[in-house]
Amino acid sequence: MIIVLRSGAAPQEIEEVVRRLKKLGFGVHISQGTERTIIGAIGDERGVNLEEKIGVLPFVERVIPILTPYKLTSREFREQDTVVRVNDVEIGPGKFVIIAGPCAVESETQVMETAFRVKEAGGKILRGGAFKPRTSPYSFQGLGEEGLKLLARARELTGLPIVTEALGIEELPMVAEYADMIQIGARNMQNFRLLEAVGKLRKPVLLKRGMMNTIDEMLMSAEYILAQGNYQVVLCERGIRTFEPATRNTLDLSCIPLVKKKSHLPILVDPSHGTGRSDLVHPMCLAALAVGADGLLVEVHPNPVEALSDGPQSISPDQFFSLVRDLRRFAPLVGREI
Amino acid sequence: MIIVLRSGAAPQEIEEVVRRLKKLGFGVHISQGTERTIIGAIGDERGVNLEEKIGVLPFVERVIPILTPYKLTSREFREQDTVVRVNDVEIGPGKFVIIAGPCAVESETQVMETAFRVKEAGGKILRGGAFKPRTSPYSFQGLGEEGLKLLARARELTGLPIVTEALGIEELPMVAEYADMIQIGARNMQNFRLLEAVGKLRKPVLLKRGMMNTIDEMLMSAEYILAQGNYQVVLCERGIRTFEPATRNTLDLSCIPLVKKKSHLPILVDPSHGTGRSDLVHPMCLAALAVGADGLLVEVHPNPVEALSDGPQSISPDQFFSLVRDLRRFAPLVGREI
Amino acid sequence: MIIVLRSGAAPQEIEEVVRRLKKLGFGVHISQGTERTIIGAIGDERGVNLEEKIGVLPFVERVIPILTPYKLTSREFREQDTVVRVNDVEIGPGKFVIIAGPCAVESETQVMETAFRVKEAGGKILRGGAFKPRTSPYSFQGLGEEGLKLLARARELTGLPIVTEALGIEELPMVAEYADMIQIGARNMQNFRLLEAVGKLRKPVLLKRGMMNTIDEMLMSAEYILAQGNYQVVLCERGIRTFEPATRNTLDLSCIPLVKKKSHLPILVDPSHGTGRSDLVHPMCLAALAVGADGLLVEVHPNPVEALSDGPQSISPDQFFSLVRDLRRFAPLVGREI
Amino acid sequence: MIIVLRSGAAPQEIEEVVRRLKKLGFGVHISQGTERTIIGAIGDERGVNLEEKIGVLPFVERVIPILTPYKLTSREFREQDTVVRVNDVEIGPGKFVIIAGPCAVESETQVMETAFRVKEAGGKILRGGAFKPRTSPYSFQGLGEEGLKLLARARELTGLPIVTEALGIEELPMVAEYADMIQIGARNMQNFRLLEAVGKLRKPVLLKRGMMNTIDEMLMSAEYILAQGNYQVVLCERGIRTFEPATRNTLDLSCIPLVKKKSHLPILVDPSHGTGRSDLVHPMCLAALAVGADGLLVEVHPNPVEALSDGPQSISPDQFFSLVRDLRRFAPLVGREI
Repeated sequence: MIIVLRSGAAPQEIEEVVRRLKKLGFGVHISQGTERTIIGAIGDERGVNLEEKIGVLPFVERVIPILTPYKLTSREFREQDTVVRVNDVEIGPGKFVIIAGPCAVESETQVMETAFRVKEAGGKILRGGAFKPRTSPYSFQGLGEEGLKLLARARELTGLPIVTEALGIEELPMVAEYADMIQIGARNMQNFRLLEAVGKLRKPVLLKRGMMNTIDEMLMSAEYILAQGNYQVVLCERGIRTFEPATRNTLDLSCIPLVKKKSHLPILVDPSHGTGRSDLVHPMCLAALAVGADGLLVEVHPNPVEALSDGPQSISPDQFFSLVRDLRRFAPLVGREI
Repeated sequence: MIIVLRSGAAPQEIEEVVRRLKKLGFGVHISQGTERTIIGAIGDERGVNLEEKIGVLPFVERVIPILTPYKLTSREFREQDTVVRVNDVEIGPGKFVIIAGPCAVESETQVMETAFRVKEAGGKILRGGAFKPRTSPYSFQGLGEEGLKLLARARELTGLPIVTEALGIEELPMVAEYADMIQIGARNMQNFRLLEAVGKLRKPVLLKRGMMNTIDEMLMSAEYILAQGNYQVVLCERGIRTFEPATRNTLDLSCIPLVKKKSHLPILVDPSHGTGRSDLVHPMCLAALAVGADGLLVEVHPNPVEALSDGPQSISPDQFFSLVRDLRRFAPLVGREI
Repeated sequence: MIIVLRSGAAPQEIEEVVRRLKKLGFGVHISQGTERTIIGAIGDERGVNLEEKIGVLPFVERVIPILTPYKLTSREFREQDTVVRVNDVEIGPGKFVIIAGPCAVESETQVMETAFRVKEAGGKILRGGAFKPRTSPYSFQGLGEEGLKLLARARELTGLPIVTEALGIEELPMVAEYADMIQIGARNMQNFRLLEAVGKLRKPVLLKRGMMNTIDEMLMSAEYILAQGNYQVVLCERGIRTFEPATRNTLDLSCIPLVKKKSHLPILVDPSHGTGRSDLVHPMCLAALAVGADGLLVEVHPNPVEALSDGPQSISPDQFFSLVRDLRRFAPLVGREI
Repeated sequence: MIIVLRSGAAPQEIEEVVRRLKKLGFGVHISQGTERTIIGAIGDERGVNLEEKIGVLPFVERVIPILTPYKLTSREFREQDTVVRVNDVEIGPGKFVIIAGPCAVESETQVMETAFRVKEAGGKILRGGAFKPRTSPYSFQGLGEEGLKLLARARELTGLPIVTEALGIEELPMVAEYADMIQIGARNMQNFRLLEAVGKLRKPVLLKRGMMNTIDEMLMSAEYILAQGNYQVVLCERGIRTFEPATRNTLDLSCIPLVKKKSHLPILVDPSHGTGRSDLVHPMCLAALAVGADGLLVEVHPNPVEALSDGPQSISPDQFFSLVRDLRRFAPLVGREI
């Protein structure tokens, strides 16, 4: 941590900073510049909020953290890539795992048809929402437990593990009973109570980046889960909010190689929510593979024009089939297997 | 709702849209332009997600909603300004209510000293966090129930009602037992389970705008609460996330007169989180009063340089005193009483 | 400037940084932390791009500038507020100068009527565009020199100085011949050739913040002008681009007190472009006064519903009259005169 | 164009809109909804700013344009992909053209070494800045004409065409004399005078997207050039400004397939500026190829650690060599030739 004092700080002010740092157990290094005095705090700054404790002093201009604020999530803590297992599916290096399915579970026919088509095409995990987060209280909110049962039935018939979202703690035990992997949605990325709760489970977690959150904040949210002892976390880039109105969000693909440098956790890409347009899903999936993602989350609906939610960004089973075919041709070039 | 078809849409495609709209109970109006056919759907579009149901058709270029998606929250539903009562404090037209207190409850001395100084200066409600949402799992998370008890004790001694945040449903009953007003924080603005839960309470709610949420989304989140029968909702602008790094967030003051046009609910401004800098709090408070806000949420700490959280954006009781003094001089000019 | 080395940097790598810094004339201060080595560069870092020269080394993790990159523009360079004189109008402390007029000069009647009404109400400078920057090549581009002549005629009749925009260098001499103050528009804030050119003039300049630019970038653009010897620069906040679609831009009022801390230059607020909605102009003008701005830039049109450009954000002369009346009641409270 | 009237608009207000539309030559279609009256304007809305002319009426709630505001640039105007020729290099379908070179021309050795290494690796056009747009007036501004001469000499020796930026109109003739393709930089994307000027040349133009400009605004700026008769325009995505601080900009790859739908012009990707980090250039280049771009703009420097500008985002000739080798393996899969 580096502390920059305001121009013309008095000796007793410098002393005050030094006194505080030493009290917090830090070593101190003073550097007298031509216009500013700078103080280096030597020690492990994680867990001590120096930015607040020192930054608040009126003669301190800035406090600059040097270490990343997460530990268990960081590549420095664990050099090797983490492999997350969802039943017999491995998400991690050398693989490119495609998770697909409808936005929301709507009916038995819809789920079963999608599940079989997804499996046939090469999808490895089935996704589908039983509890849906909706901006409007008047929109379709999902089938609830009935939806979970349909997903479980689809797993029984196809063998595909299932991932589905839990919106709150009170429904988490029920979701965990049916699902093989729990999804934490973008709007809940900083629902810290929910993060702690899935941290206490021993089930893989799919953590989606909030549309308003930085990469470091996503890694901090993962840290909440790991800190509770659950290391089976898969991240997911799904687009951030920007000024551009042509797409629902702006899919930040540079996030993928960056996360690979910072963390050992696998990361997927969701181009369906990331763009909000089914006609952009195919090219963005190819780009996600090229850029180093560990897999995809894609919305597939047997009949997008009849979907109860997210129809405009869902692709049909036929489009999904042709997408996976193209991905298979690319995958060997980046050393991955679909 | 207006449906714009792609250039060159065939007659049977137009028919398909008409068929769907009629099935959903809408009247239909077709308008043949020089390059596009446009179809107007006549009827109440709230509760029917036409954007998904019609927008998904491949020959539909755009679906444009005409009505605002919220109803109970809208000015059209209720023309008169809503007055929210927190014990004997009224938030609404003609008043300018100042809510102040520390970011987090830290100790009895801290809360009591702040409470007395806030009351003395002219603050009407005491704020303070017992459960704190923190980006890092290693930061101070609040005193929990102990903090709630200290707040209740401060109310007892000063008579000030208290507002405090509930982070999740499981702690909501406990928070509701102590607090006079429940705060829903920015990161929880779209925690729909929590919104529904406070909607079922009969306590006033302080709903803060998410840092990356639009004004319409904030009003939709309020609608979740009103739809459960709780009309005692106060909104709060607290800054949005932009590219500008000089302030923690960008305080969107134009939000205030806009919300006044769209909704009957009162709205406050929180310049402490909105700027993240204590030296900007005073001028932004004056601006909030000038622009038409119904009050303020301000972080005050008896000793900001020793605060366990948010010290850099807290003002001291003396600064608060001089702030309220200035606000009192302005308030009559905008027809408000402090 | 502080240089943070990557974890595990070798002694010869530390040496390499030191060698480079010394070669550039900097003193050096090495601080060995528990996980990182940090090097302080002591000397004047302005004019030497250490971020590029040192940051490019593979074993350097980050280079953190300590000083602000502008000099002449900074409050440290000049403690006292600058007063800019446009003919006999002073823009600076103790004053609140209202600049008003139509977006574009359209006709003699329009300009004359506006000029008289603006003056009558209390406006001090007349604005109006003769050369208009338009997103579309098919939109009205302004009357050109004819427009400048109309503005000059309005000055003759009313005595109001005039400010108008120059879009490019080639038209700058002509604009400078007619105008009392040259406006550099938001889209040209980083048109460095144009900045240099107005820097060589001895006329006051009104520099608008780009909708995509940080406060520091605005001050750097001002530095381009001051560095050429022209110190008569007035800044203007006019809204930045964010994700919020309800307003054309998000007016960043916290920019005003921040600029006051960083720089000695006066700064105005333009709520017409900042919000894009005439119904928000009045409250945002009051807020601008309350927050410490040195004045306003407001679009007034004798008949907004017939305006050739920016009608939806222009107010009528009657609305302007009532606006100035309200501002006059507030101004004494903040120690300013209109 | 669709006009939505405010709730409760009076018959004479509807009449007023109709009168105005007819006067402007539009057909009119009135649609009486349950809560709003909606009026469709039938006719070619390009060139008539209805948003201003009608939107300004107080009883009009919204004006919604239906047609895209550009014409010559649109896919509807010209269905076939445009091929832009820079000397004997073709940019367009079936090709993947790599433009590479240093950010700034610094010296003869630097340019020549880069040019030979770029050509050897498979680059087709040489880039390099002689006039540099710099945020600070104190940063290196480029070698000027001397730089242009060095570029011309590199072309002579290697046969590679050269592309370089013109910052302003006054230097345009000189730049055009040396360069084979003129670059308009991101900060100048809405410098309309410069756009008109390159529109009058008969040289290919490389138009970079502004960091805070929408896709539609980029296409409108292209329209400025095409409207002057110059159809040889290549677009370039180079990252937009967002809240994420980990990268200099956020590279918006979904822009590529979107532009392909909207326009017939070729589009490149610049991952050097788009990310600001040399370690992200390789993966983002692969993604750009996968997503459908027509080529790349990459910063290559013989010795990035000694570069006078943009060192941190430049790759070395060796890294460039290995990048092109990887791109060559991918290119056939997307039907392109390098």
